[in-house]
Amino acid sequence: MQETVAANKVVTETNIDEVMQHAFDAFNEYKKLPAQKRAVFLETIADEIEKLREQLVAVANAETNLPLARLNGELTRTNNQLKMFATLIKEGSWVEASIDTAINDRTPPRPDIRKMLVPVGPVVVFGASNFPFAFSTAGGDTASALASGSSVVIKGHSAHAKTSQFVYTAIQKAIKVSGVPGHTVQHVMGSGNTVGKALVMHPYTKGVGFTGSFAGGTALVGYSNQREIPIPVFAEMSSINPVVFYPDTLSKNAESLAAMYAASITLGVGQFCTNPGILLGLRSDSFNNFLAALGKEISKVQPQKMLHSGICSSYGKGLTQMLDQQGLQVIAQSASPANDMEATALLASVNGKEFLENKHFVEEVFGPYSLAIICDDTTQLKQCLQNLKGQLTSSIMATEKDIEEYSEVIELQHTLAGRILLNNAPTGVEVCSSMVHGGPYPATTDARFTSVGTTAIKRWVRPICLQNFNDDMLPDALKNDNPLSILRLVDNVYTRDAVNA
Amino acid sequence: MQETVAANKVVTETNIDEVMQHAFDAFNEYKKLPAQKRAVFLETIADEIEKLREQLVAVANAETNLPLARLNGELTRTNNQLKMFATLIKEGSWVEASIDTAINDRTPPRPDIRKMLVPVGPVVVFGASNFPFAFSTAGGDTASALASGSSVVIKGHSAHAKTSQFVYTAIQKAIKVSGVPGHTVQHVMGSGNTVGKALVMHPYTKGVGFTGSFAGGTALVGYSNQREIPIPVFAEMSSINPVVFYPDTLSKNAESLAAMYAASITLGVGQFCTNPGILLGLRSDSFNNFLAALGKEISKVQPQKMLHSGICSSYGKGLTQMLDQQGLQVIAQSASPANDMEATALLASVNGKEFLENKHFVEEVFGPYSLAIICDDTTQLKQCLQNLKGQLTSSIMATEKDIEEYSEVIELQHTLAGRILLNNAPTGVEVCSSMVHGGPYPATTDARFTSVGTTAIKRWVRPICLQNFNDDMLPDALKNDNPLSILRLVDNVYTRDAVNA
Repeated sequence: MQETVAANKVVTETNIDEVMQHAFDAFNEYKKLPAQKRAVFLETIADEIEKLREQLVAVANAETNLPLARLNGELTRTNNQLKMFATLIKEGSWVEASIDTAINDRTPPRPDIRKMLVPVGPVVVFGASNFPFAFSTAGGDTASALASGSSVVIKGHSAHAKTSQFVYTAIQKAIKVSGVPGHTVQHVMGSGNTVGKALVMHPYTKGVGFTGSFAGGTALVGYSNQREIPIPVFAEMSSINPVVFYPDTLSKNAESLAAMYAASITLGVGQFCTNPGILLGLRSDSFNNFLAALGKEISKVQPQKMLHSGICSSYGKGLTQMLDQQGLQVIAQSASPANDMEATALLASVNGKEFLENKHFVEEVFGPYSLAIICDDTTQLKQCLQNLKGQLTSSIMATEKDIEEYSEVIELQHTLAGRILLNNAPTGVEVCSSMVHGGPYPATTDARFTSVGTTAIKRWVRPICLQNFNDDMLPDALKNDNPLSILRLVDNVYTRDAVNA
Repeated sequence: MQETVAANKVVTETNIDEVMQHAFDAFNEYKKLPAQKRAVFLETIADEIEKLREQLVAVANAETNLPLARLNGELTRTNNQLKMFATLIKEGSWVEASIDTAINDRTPPRPDIRKMLVPVGPVVVFGASNFPFAFSTAGGDTASALASGSSVVIKGHSAHAKTSQFVYTAIQKAIKVSGVPGHTVQHVMGSGNTVGKALVMHPYTKGVGFTGSFAGGTALVGYSNQREIPIPVFAEMSSINPVVFYPDTLSKNAESLAAMYAASITLGVGQFCTNPGILLGLRSDSFNNFLAALGKEISKVQPQKMLHSGICSSYGKGLTQMLDQQGLQVIAQSASPANDMEATALLASVNGKEFLENKHFVEEVFGPYSLAIICDDTTQLKQCLQNLKGQLTSSIMATEKDIEEYSEVIELQHTLAGRILLNNAPTGVEVCSSMVHGGPYPATTDARFTSVGTTAIKRWVRPICLQNFNDDMLPDALKNDNPLSILRLVDNVYTRDAVNA
């Protein structure tokens, strides 16, 4: 392959055509590479990022105000994600190979039919402001798309443009070292309204990954709906992650629950999609005691710098609007005053009745803020849960006694989100095969998929079936002798055995 | 359960609220039933339909003009689909259970995380005009949704209203016999613009299945996009199913290919979604000979009655419009004159150049019509394929020599559709695990799913993950001892073994 590696340049909407033509051409080569080669590419990206760790973390720290320890952890996670997808595609069973062999003596005869997942084509990834590494340039969207066999065009986030371009140099190095097509990954900068829109609307674009605001996500969906051929837009948009504290656990564990949730609400200055923004409980002394203990912890939290001035001013505005709502009472806030770009942690409460009467209370305030809902009874608690929009997470803080007594409420909690937690705080999203980081609209645009964990790869593929093919025309995943040794469904039986055909 | 079985009544948009409230309440009971019980329900529907076979087929014959043999076959297929989904959920592995066990000695500790698919809630199914049994009232959409654990509201098709209501009596009987909630399946009639719209837009509706026209499908998608919370609309809409006839096979097999394709083009009066509407080849004596032989076969085909007068008049109009296009030449048509509601089979041709210059040629004409595209060279053949919209099928008629010589064209054919066939005709959709009856837009609204075969169940589910749950709170599919004996991914290894946790 004599192609040069794509340059790290700022593009405008005027040359999106060129970018997408490169992405399309690269896709048509890249998708044909054996999984082994794609895996090495992913691992090489991780290696090249690791080599730049110190400088990358320093640049990101300067751009995002995120502390070095957090950024080091996030960089490690990013590389682990790349390696996880490499492992997944080396094993190979993720393609869901399925084979129904011919039955010649049936009337009519049954033809041989074989199915597998194939990549859809160029994918556009939007960097996320709150994860400069793990949900941005070489983050989960890029890693999963590359693993699937798609080429990727990354639109870097303006809030950490230098970090994004720096990470991209590591990807460029990996492209050269591993010999994949030069434009397998391209990196562009520019405004969402112009460059972003042009990328989503380009006919060669077949999928979009986005993590950000509801306004941003729905704008991208709107662009897709304007296309002659709409495409899937996987946008993770907003979630306030309800937590229900049940009576028995409140009476027994108020102090430890308060410590756990003060940490969760203020972790990363509250700038996580899974930040617990709504805390529900039944009116009682034990709920009051818990809230008092939580408030005490919150008041000790020092104001900290947010990612960028835009997020900080949004937090300020959101908080002001929320504090203006009828019935809201502040329980506690950071005792120290906030300096420029810093966020004050804040805990407030409202009665169930007022919560139900005012839709504003279910809006996300992105930052270290949480609202306790004090419910009169179980009926009202259920109404409050039903009043919520779709969520990423739904947490159950309960003893066995609570679980028995409140089974109906808990059942309702299961319907709200993609991830249901028992006696855990929702922040901290484990990167693993069983993770669902997704949930009913508007938490994400498509609750059927996750953006974290191995199954994130499923966002960039579609199934095709091949009917009556000769064995030598079949892709390796579907050949009779199963050269990849993957798990397949053969005549409705899961097996790694060869097919006798 | 003391609930009565839903009445078989014609509803209007004024009582859709009541219908959807019933569907929602039934869903909340039905989803909790063990898979075994849902399976028995599906099997009982098949049994009850079988009992009414003779009368059902007679009613459908009177309403649709489809011959008895075809209707008998379709009824058998319908019952086999119901039983196939029963078998699938009795086996149980379709829920994609995945378990990542806790690692307590990691920093931070990894929580126990378990994932599976759960049903989304009430599903609305629109009956299809061209399959009164297999894609209608108790057809694949209904069967797959019921198998997943969703309740179903069927909007019967006006073109076979009596058949639809009659099939529904069998479902009602099965509801009673198997003791599932009375409103697990409801049946309504009414116009698409009023009742159909109200069903799609109702907040309790969580998914829609539709097989029909592009106009109908996109209207439903439009309704979904108007919702506060958009929902997946699985619409199978239009496909002209390109077939490429390569030179070597044409020179050797012209007669048998002509017989195979005359049958495929005119099967069921051309009223199949997979009807081959575009036949491509390189300009040559052998392609001409094939087309002459095909024309001879087509001229022998007797005009036959279409499903209803609307479809017949659409076919007439579509044909007239097509015949008006510059460059189109009629090769042959049914020799006998067509009576009222009958369709004349017709084969036409156009040169590649003219085909590329006129977008009208890629429009679907639903009926026994096919258009041959005579291409000057391989480059033009590829351009003609690239000019096509998304398709359900893409067929390759080729010898091994052709396959070697035209690998680039064949590779392009793979990108067009959900099902790729070698030396088979596309009509005849096998109901099996490996089937993909779906394809890039506008063949369907979502190429990631199929409406035929076991994986059709995946349209009505979403994954949830449960974090840090006690074993006794977990659903059976995720419990440590694997009481359902299903295949699961446990710590990244596929196994039916119990979990040691």
